[in-house]
Amino acid sequence: MGDLDIRPATTDDVSAIVALLADDPLGAQRESPDNLTPYLAALERLTSDPNQHLVVAVREGRIVGTLQLTVIPGLSRRGATRSVVEGVRVHADERGSGLGTRLMEWAIDESRRQDCRLVQLTSDNTRTDAHRFYERLGFTASHVGFKLQL
Amino acid sequence: MGDLDIRPATTDDVSAIVALLADDPLGAQRESPDNLTPYLAALERLTSDPNQHLVVAVREGRIVGTLQLTVIPGLSRRGATRSVVEGVRVHADERGSGLGTRLMEWAIDESRRQDCRLVQLTSDNTRTDAHRFYERLGFTASHVGFKLQL
Repeated sequence: MGDLDIRPATTDDVSAIVALLADDPLGAQRESPDNLTPYLAALERLTSDPNQHLVVAVREGRIVGTLQLTVIPGLSRRGATRSVVEGVRVHADERGSGLGTRLMEWAIDESRRQDCRLVQLTSDNTRTDAHRFYERLGFTASHVGFKLQL
Repeated sequence: MGDLDIRPATTDDVSAIVALLADDPLGAQRESPDNLTPYLAALERLTSDPNQHLVVAVREGRIVGTLQLTVIPGLSRRGATRSVVEGVRVHADERGSGLGTRLMEWAIDESRRQDCRLVQLTSDNTRTDAHRFYERLGFTASHVGFKLQL
């Protein structure tokens, strides 16, 4: 396989990102690939916020993965900054290729570069393969993740 | 008990906030109430970020609770903005007074005001009382929370 590039997402990438988000057992029910307007508005908001890093993984000109990293300062743990990873997606063709690991290593390296002392994420209870993947990367399943839909 | 005010934290509140963070089975090991320097630096960073809301609950001039709300835009779920709650603490004297509920209601109301479609948080696996508390507020324990210390 060709070289992999991980870089910030731009407007031209939105359609491919949404396709990745929708090609997922959970995402299929909650995305609208036929209407990109809300996604383009969200990208504009992300791009204007220096603590947001939405990236795409590109191989041979094709977007094959995405991930969002958010840097969150805070008082707890002696004023520790932490990062939160959301929306990790790997194209179906690339599963098992090590791309998920490459994306997460990017997120961990970038978190270190930004002096984060903790990287955190939540994964749906049903995604048991993902849970094993995060544990292999050194993450600990130490917390319960609660969500409230508004 | 006197009236409760929930307002943004200021420099003068940092010592009391750190005392709340440290008065906790987990926080006792990871906070340094004798050295406020890192906390003051973190507050400055929080205050300069419009997506960060560190608040204190004040009763009769005394800080009795704190919570941090972070607003996170994103592409997934049709460009949904979500919020993350961190560092919820209630003074020992106030436990059972409904203050935790008041703080969380503030966080939920503020999230709605900011057009968030989801409020999320993680709670350590050992905090089983907190888990019941979040479920009573309508949260669902739908996720596993992973952390990686750097």
